[in-house]
Amino acid sequence: MVRNMSNIEDREQKKYAPIGVFDSGVGGLTVAREIMRQMPHEKIVYFGDTARVPYGSKSKETVTKFSRQIVRFLQTQNVKAIVVACNTASAVALDEIEQEIDIPMIGVVKPGAKVAARTTRNGKIGVIGTESTIGSQVYSHYIKEIHPDAEVIGKACPLFVPLVEEGLLQDPVTDEIATRYLSELIDIDIDTLILGCTHYPLIRSTVGRIIGDKVTLVNPAYETAIELRNLLEQENLLNDREPRLGENQYSFYVSDAADRFKRFANAILKYGILSAKNVNIEEY
Amino acid sequence: MVRNMSNIEDREQKKYAPIGVFDSGVGGLTVAREIMRQMPHEKIVYFGDTARVPYGSKSKETVTKFSRQIVRFLQTQNVKAIVVACNTASAVALDEIEQEIDIPMIGVVKPGAKVAARTTRNGKIGVIGTESTIGSQVYSHYIKEIHPDAEVIGKACPLFVPLVEEGLLQDPVTDEIATRYLSELIDIDIDTLILGCTHYPLIRSTVGRIIGDKVTLVNPAYETAIELRNLLEQENLLNDREPRLGENQYSFYVSDAADRFKRFANAILKYGILSAKNVNIEEY
Repeated sequence: MVRNMSNIEDREQKKYAPIGVFDSGVGGLTVAREIMRQMPHEKIVYFGDTARVPYGSKSKETVTKFSRQIVRFLQTQNVKAIVVACNTASAVALDEIEQEIDIPMIGVVKPGAKVAARTTRNGKIGVIGTESTIGSQVYSHYIKEIHPDAEVIGKACPLFVPLVEEGLLQDPVTDEIATRYLSELIDIDIDTLILGCTHYPLIRSTVGRIIGDKVTLVNPAYETAIELRNLLEQENLLNDREPRLGENQYSFYVSDAADRFKRFANAILKYGILSAKNVNIEEY
Repeated sequence: MVRNMSNIEDREQKKYAPIGVFDSGVGGLTVAREIMRQMPHEKIVYFGDTARVPYGSKSKETVTKFSRQIVRFLQTQNVKAIVVACNTASAVALDEIEQEIDIPMIGVVKPGAKVAARTTRNGKIGVIGTESTIGSQVYSHYIKEIHPDAEVIGKACPLFVPLVEEGLLQDPVTDEIATRYLSELIDIDIDTLILGCTHYPLIRSTVGRIIGDKVTLVNPAYETAIELRNLLEQENLLNDREPRLGENQYSFYVSDAADRFKRFANAILKYGILSAKNVNIEEY
């Protein structure tokens, strides 16, 4: 009985613990942003592996090793759940690492794939992403688990990330590049398009305008935040308390170049980030 | 006497050994291309560290460790000299590693800086490069050793590498981006511009057209090949023999994603690359 009591108390306390979110760099901030929007009471500890970005060109073993180090770091911050806000790590490292830890862990690929599989009417789903995400066919894999007859057409858009990082979110150059990348998906007559890279929600309006309003855009960042909310609710881990005045609700950590990270974060989040701290992630 | 004889013979044999060229990825191929043009008899072993690219965001210690591994790999290929065809590694690792080996080693930064310092008439030198190269001010450092009064104005051009890697070498989008990046250098009235990134020689004509013909472009890849030629001549190491029929004159090694490397190499070199072999570079 005593033990049960203490479990309930633990769980009550655990509610107020932060959510850990990590990515290979800055892109995962779009996922953090959705969590902030949908769950304004939650605390977040964000880690961006800016020293070792990008993950896309690295082997499964390396990405798993890096992700495991980050998970260990986030656990030192007493997080109650972990969101893998990185397509590559979600695809190759999540399944293995979630077996090793005792807190819930979710990635960005499955929630996006699930919604796309349920949204399409003509069965033609486009996926845009980095070369590595498209090459891995990971979205196709999860979509076909739910909708085996779906036709999944991937299109790598390597210039989108650098265009976003240069801040050209509304720009004729980005329009022109998007028109080129999306033309074959328009020709194929897809009715659903997954924004399969965490940077892409930032050019969602450009992509939406060019692909046309007959195509439903699926934003995995948004769907991941919904899934996280459901998960926390199920486990009775949703934070129901307003953050206290002066309480540090959001913390940001990076493995390199904190200034550059801050600049990008301040451009996409609604409020200013005061600091991003450097962590020597190889020690974890 | 016998020993001297054998030294002379060794040296005669050494002439026919290949030149090692390495970069963090594909960019250094522009340097290899200049060596091929200027020294058509030479053999080349190229290594591109595609698994660990980019170096720019990594610490001096890490870049030195990676470069040392690559140097050890190139030494297993019996190279007679090593060209560091990477701005970051030239800036941070070259001085230390060249002390440790008994073959000549040259980088791309000093040759470009030297020529720029000697070329300028009004003392205003522009440098374009990646954010990390510009942030490091390494060109400025070497230019001022020769021309202490020079004014060196750096401009990071982060979109140029992805534009080049997408093959948009002659394209209205690249024109538009170059116009934006170069406008402040034009306003400042520079008379010399260093193409401070190994990818940029591939958009040399675009940059030249936009910056105008009053500005002298300095291509470090070209200057490095000249300096290498002089060095090999001095050491009596220039290969004076036509490659034999069927002899494998150029070999390419990468640490990851050989197919992508081959595609890029075939786009920029004058002839086809038959293979790029994968090397587990962490074993060296």
